[in-house]
Amino acid sequence: MTMKLDSKTPWFIELCSEAGTALSYRVTEHLAHEKTPYQTIDIYETESFGRLMAIDGFIMLTSRDNFLYHDMMSHPVLFTHPNPKNVAIIGGGDCGTLQQVLQHKNIEQVTQIEIDEQVTELSKKYFPELTADNNSPRATLLFDDGLAWMKSQPENSLDVIIVDSTDPIGPAEGLFGPAFFADCKKALKPDGILVQQSESPIIHLNSIINPLHEAMRSSGFNNIQLLNFPQPCYPSGWWSATMASPATPLNSFRENDSKNKSFATRYYNSSIHKAALAMPEFVKQGLKT
Amino acid sequence: MTMKLDSKTPWFIELCSEAGTALSYRVTEHLAHEKTPYQTIDIYETESFGRLMAIDGFIMLTSRDNFLYHDMMSHPVLFTHPNPKNVAIIGGGDCGTLQQVLQHKNIEQVTQIEIDEQVTELSKKYFPELTADNNSPRATLLFDDGLAWMKSQPENSLDVIIVDSTDPIGPAEGLFGPAFFADCKKALKPDGILVQQSESPIIHLNSIINPLHEAMRSSGFNNIQLLNFPQPCYPSGWWSATMASPATPLNSFRENDSKNKSFATRYYNSSIHKAALAMPEFVKQGLKT
Repeated sequence: MTMKLDSKTPWFIELCSEAGTALSYRVTEHLAHEKTPYQTIDIYETESFGRLMAIDGFIMLTSRDNFLYHDMMSHPVLFTHPNPKNVAIIGGGDCGTLQQVLQHKNIEQVTQIEIDEQVTELSKKYFPELTADNNSPRATLLFDDGLAWMKSQPENSLDVIIVDSTDPIGPAEGLFGPAFFADCKKALKPDGILVQQSESPIIHLNSIINPLHEAMRSSGFNNIQLLNFPQPCYPSGWWSATMASPATPLNSFRENDSKNKSFATRYYNSSIHKAALAMPEFVKQGLKT
Repeated sequence: MTMKLDSKTPWFIELCSEAGTALSYRVTEHLAHEKTPYQTIDIYETESFGRLMAIDGFIMLTSRDNFLYHDMMSHPVLFTHPNPKNVAIIGGGDCGTLQQVLQHKNIEQVTQIEIDEQVTELSKKYFPELTADNNSPRATLLFDDGLAWMKSQPENSLDVIIVDSTDPIGPAEGLFGPAFFADCKKALKPDGILVQQSESPIIHLNSIINPLHEAMRSSGFNNIQLLNFPQPCYPSGWWSATMASPATPLNSFRENDSKNKSFATRYYNSSIHKAALAMPEFVKQGLKT
C-alpha cells in the first residue's frame, strides 16, 4: 500500500505481520500495476533505491540492493558444487539470479522455470540491467509451473537447482514442502546441490527455516547449510538462503576458483562466502538440523 | 512519530531521510516520554520486539535485537586487544555494551561516560536486563560530557575506548571528528584500540564511514578495520563498527581466547568475528582507507 507519512510524496509500505514491523520507501511514481492470473505486480520509482517491484504487496527487489540477494543465490552454490554444468532456476522471474549464474563460464545450460511471464516482462521493461543476458544461447526461459516441471525431469540430470521464489504463501507454498524436495532430489545428480531462499534468521528461524530444513532432510538431503547475508529491502534487513545436498559437503568450497573468478561482483567474494557460512550463536543453538 | 498504518494499534515510525526509507514497529503502549537537557527520549512497548527506546525520534534499541549491536561493540575489540585491562565507554547509556564488557573477566576497570543520566535511568526501568551489572565493583558510571572527559585523561592510560554514541548529529557530532580522536589517541596506550559505531555500509559509506576513517587516520590511527553485522532496528538492517589503533593489527584476534571464552553470547563467536571482518566487494572498492 502507499500512504503519506510526511508532507511530501507518498511512501510504499510493506507490513510484516509476523514481526510487527513495516518497511517503507519514499516513492515518486507508480510505474506499473498488473493483475496476472497468479498475483498482482506493482513497480514504483523510489527516491533513493531506484525501482522497486512488489508482488501482492511484498517487496521483491529494488534496483539498489538486489545485487546482495542475487549474488548469494548464485555464487556460493556454484563455487560449492565441484563442477556444475546444468542448472535449473525455479522462479527467478526478474532474471537477476539467471544473470549471475551465466557469469560462470563453466555452466553449459541454465533453464529457468517462472510461473508468471509478466514478472519477466515487467523486469525487461523496468530492470533491463537484470535481463540483459536473457538471450544467451546457454539460457532457456520457460513460463510454467516449477513444481510440475521438476516432477517431469529425468533422474540424475541436474547439477544445481536454485529455488528463487516468493515467500512460502500463495503460489510458492509448494516450493517449501517435502514432495517438491523429493522431486528435486530425483532430478539432481548424486553430487548435486539445491539452494533456496530461506527468509530471515531473526524472524523466521522457527516458523520457516527449521521446517524447511526438516522437509529437505526428510527428502534425502543429508547436508544442509544456511547462508546469512544482508538484504535491506526484506523484513529485518537480514536474510538467508539454504544449500542442501544428498552428498556434497557444503561448508567448504572451491576457494581458489572463487578467488580467481573471471567476473566482477558487487557483494560476493571468497571472504564473503566464508562469512555467510558463519553461524551466530542463537542460530547455531536454534537450528534443529 | 506514531501513526495508524492499519486498522489496529498505532505504529512507531522512523523516517531515514538520507535513504528515503522508513522503519516501523507496531506499538501497544507509549511507556515514557521525557525531554532532558540534551534530547527527547521515548519508550514504547512493541508487539513483537519487546521494548523500544527512541532518542529524538531515532530508534536506539529494542529488547529483541540489541544483543547484535552490543556484542559487536564489545567482543571483537576486546578479543583483538592483546591484554585489555582498562576500558572507557563514551555514551552507551543503555548499559548493554557495559554489560558485555564486564563479561570479560580480565577487564579490571570500565568507566562509562554518558552525557544524559536519563538514558540510564530509563534503561534501568524499562531494560533492567541490560543494567543488571551496573553495580559491579569494576564499573564506574559517570554522567558527563565524553568529549571533555577524554581531553582530561592522563596520557597512555586506557587500553580500549568504545564510542557507543547516537548518530553524528546533535550531541554526538563531536564524537566523529578529529579533535576527539586526537584526545583518544593521547589517552590510549600505544597498543590501545578505539571502536566506534559507524552506521550502515550500504547507506553511509561515503557520507559517514569514509569521513570517519579519514578523521581517525589523520589523528594517528594507522590501522583501521570495519566490522559488518546485522542490526534490524537501524536503517537498512545492516550496520557497522570501526576499530582503529595506532599500532595493533586489527584483522586478526586472540582466536583461542575467543573460542574458549567463559561466558555465553547470543550473536558473537569466533566465526562471527571473522565474518565481521569480511569486506563486500563494493565496500572494499568504496573504502578510501
